[in-house]
Amino acid sequence: MVRLLGIDPGLRFTGWGIIDVKDNQLRHVENGVIATDSSTSVPERLKRLYEELQALITRLAPTEAAVEETYVNRNGTSTLKLGYARSVALLAPAMAGLTVSEYGALAVKKAVVGTGSANKTQVQTMVRHLLPGITITRADASDALAIAICHAHHRTSVHHLLTRTKIV
Amino acid sequence: MVRLLGIDPGLRFTGWGIIDVKDNQLRHVENGVIATDSSTSVPERLKRLYEELQALITRLAPTEAAVEETYVNRNGTSTLKLGYARSVALLAPAMAGLTVSEYGALAVKKAVVGTGSANKTQVQTMVRHLLPGITITRADASDALAIAICHAHHRTSVHHLLTRTKIV
Repeated sequence: MVRLLGIDPGLRFTGWGIIDVKDNQLRHVENGVIATDSSTSVPERLKRLYEELQALITRLAPTEAAVEETYVNRNGTSTLKLGYARSVALLAPAMAGLTVSEYGALAVKKAVVGTGSANKTQVQTMVRHLLPGITITRADASDALAIAICHAHHRTSVHHLLTRTKIV
Repeated sequence: MVRLLGIDPGLRFTGWGIIDVKDNQLRHVENGVIATDSSTSVPERLKRLYEELQALITRLAPTEAAVEETYVNRNGTSTLKLGYARSVALLAPAMAGLTVSEYGALAVKKAVVGTGSANKTQVQTMVRHLLPGITITRADASDALAIAICHAHHRTSVHHLLTRTKIV
């Protein structure tokens, strides 16, 4: 069994979701959102995000992490803020010794819905279908679970590929 | 006496410089550059940058930090990479309990040379003049010392202002 942590980073809200994968079976563990107070300084907000990620990695002990690739905005300041949050989302699991994979929005949609042209609602519906009975408070947490599911698919493919390569 | 850490962040090279300030007198402590290997993954590079900053904060025990504001590039990908490095440069001192101030390039030039239109060479010359006898290996470290000097000027101004406000 592997326990995967998916992260959808943002300076205001960072969604996270943890799933267990065993024999291609997915099981939901927990999901949530880390919010930072926009009235505090950027260093304080990054510190809060880092500490919250650190705490949940310690508490739930995922073995691998996957982070959504940031959409590069035309607005430089927005891109910079996304970069700040994403940096912490990559750093926290790396510091805890987890492998960190990165997936673009297209790869996530393809893995979860089967097509890269899927919309947000379709992704959310599929996340609920693949992880029945879960409660999701915010869309960011659903996106984070979708990233974790995407990683579950890709790591298996790579594993199969490696296994096959070894056999041949 | 206060010990100030200046950081000029970059994913490939992050310059840092530490100075002591006592009665408006500046004294150079140490400067250097943290390089990350561009052939390794971004999470690994951020981890290395964080660990190096953490180690030097522990070893040299600065009490306040100042970080150069990132120039927002037209190239979104470059902006994002700068954002990653800058995030870690803000996070590491914040996690160590230091106050973190941010200064734009204009403020740094004004504080060090006296004019915002100063060029890089003029800034470097003034840094060497203000901190006589120092050895600087790379320009990034000189820029980091300039940021620390800028913070030394501004924190004093704010202190004077507060003192005056209290007296009146």
